[in-house]
Amino acid sequence: MPSYTELIDYRLSELIPDSNEILPQAMHYALFGGGKRLRPQLVLSTAQVLGTQLKDALDPACAIEMIHTYSLIHDDLPCMDNDDFRRGRPTVHRAFPEAIAVLAGDALLTEAFRVISIAENLSDRQIIRLTNCLAKRIGKEGMVGGQAIDILSLGQTMPQELLIIMDQKKTGDLFSCSLEFGAIIANASPLIEKHLRQVGLHLGLAYQIRDDLEDSSISSIPQKTGAKPSIVGILGIEAAKKIMKQSFDAIQHHLSFLPENADPINGLIKPYLNT
Amino acid sequence: MPSYTELIDYRLSELIPDSNEILPQAMHYALFGGGKRLRPQLVLSTAQVLGTQLKDALDPACAIEMIHTYSLIHDDLPCMDNDDFRRGRPTVHRAFPEAIAVLAGDALLTEAFRVISIAENLSDRQIIRLTNCLAKRIGKEGMVGGQAIDILSLGQTMPQELLIIMDQKKTGDLFSCSLEFGAIIANASPLIEKHLRQVGLHLGLAYQIRDDLEDSSISSIPQKTGAKPSIVGILGIEAAKKIMKQSFDAIQHHLSFLPENADPINGLIKPYLNT
Repeated sequence: MPSYTELIDYRLSELIPDSNEILPQAMHYALFGGGKRLRPQLVLSTAQVLGTQLKDALDPACAIEMIHTYSLIHDDLPCMDNDDFRRGRPTVHRAFPEAIAVLAGDALLTEAFRVISIAENLSDRQIIRLTNCLAKRIGKEGMVGGQAIDILSLGQTMPQELLIIMDQKKTGDLFSCSLEFGAIIANASPLIEKHLRQVGLHLGLAYQIRDDLEDSSISSIPQKTGAKPSIVGILGIEAAKKIMKQSFDAIQHHLSFLPENADPINGLIKPYLNT
Repeated sequence: MPSYTELIDYRLSELIPDSNEILPQAMHYALFGGGKRLRPQLVLSTAQVLGTQLKDALDPACAIEMIHTYSLIHDDLPCMDNDDFRRGRPTVHRAFPEAIAVLAGDALLTEAFRVISIAENLSDRQIIRLTNCLAKRIGKEGMVGGQAIDILSLGQTMPQELLIIMDQKKTGDLFSCSLEFGAIIANASPLIEKHLRQVGLHLGLAYQIRDDLEDSSISSIPQKTGAKPSIVGILGIEAAKKIMKQSFDAIQHHLSFLPENADPINGLIKPYLNT
């Protein structure tokens, strides 16, 4: 039996094969950059825990990875985080012309919706619910909204509540969406979907704090001028670790409402929650 | 009875109201920049000619205008066409931080799919067909694919066939999509949909040639180094006008297959086809 990541990588390479044409080549380059596939694995794991066959969840899972990849391409752009490297390789706008990086992001975002629209073995209503859930979680009220708060916060301080909202939107909403995808594919109850949404938001927060903790330059200089505010930078390491622990407990609480044993989901996220 | 553009403007201002928050503010700024609303008017007109109520077509029409607007924001970026002004106003990345312009484009693209997913009075199958049609027409095989050809062609020459394909993708596919939206909303036959797709592709070509003809700097210096190749620049004004005339004839041919009088559709596009 192939692993989740093998299934995801294989299907992604069918959906966006390498190419001699520069646009699909840039999309492929970005998709196969050594990512851990955490988000699509969460789709597969949640769908399976809730009693659905893996194959029904695979294309929606790949759509989620396309969205994650598009967001990284655009985040790395010179006008955003201006990163030259990601996971040891040149970022897309360094390996390709910058305009192609913008377009590769746009095309991956669009392709995610196309892939969902032709997902097999799902009802029309399920496909529409996936489409609507994705658009809500990654749009102006979700991931992109969080990115905008992040961009504008440069060199500013921020109250704790806004820091949490920023992380929940920027990082939590796509985790939420991944878990909600599992619920929609498995036709789980609205209550289960709500608990999974909370798991995703808390996971996003904990994941972002872990990221910030790893960035020692931020943690050692709590309020560096010109740096982006973070929970670690503004509240300090101890307070951040406390919020992370609370998030972890909240995740366990919300997962306990699942009708089946949530160990497979926990197994995926636990490595990211150990400080 | 309000005009098409009044209906569209009113509904767009409900969907993306002005705001004190910078991201929705940038989206609103871009959407209300004096555009002619040709594409959403084509959705309304086609749906009405094919026998559907206007109100069922309004939200999908607004989604098309959001897509057109997102494509203009990203096209204007410094790494793309680097335009400081559009219709006499500063472009979005001049009126707002450049990162916010990228995100406003991303958010409008995403919002278009959200709006379609909750369109009223349409069947689930119609909503999925709209979603799939949009994703195909504006993605790597369509509009964004055409943009990539355009970007890479800077300073190059190009065979006539590729010039035509570029214009059909870059400009024609979103016109196609607008007309196909009308057909899907009206539950027209697959044959009608195919003819409307051809109308859109020919309209895109003619529209692009008209644009190029208006840009005298291109038409007077047919193969300026560093300029983007265009049908006018490479084939010359007379040959371009001939292709435009052929496109116009093809449009009339394909419109003649509509079961009803296509005058309202023709009325919208004719002003753009007179040379």
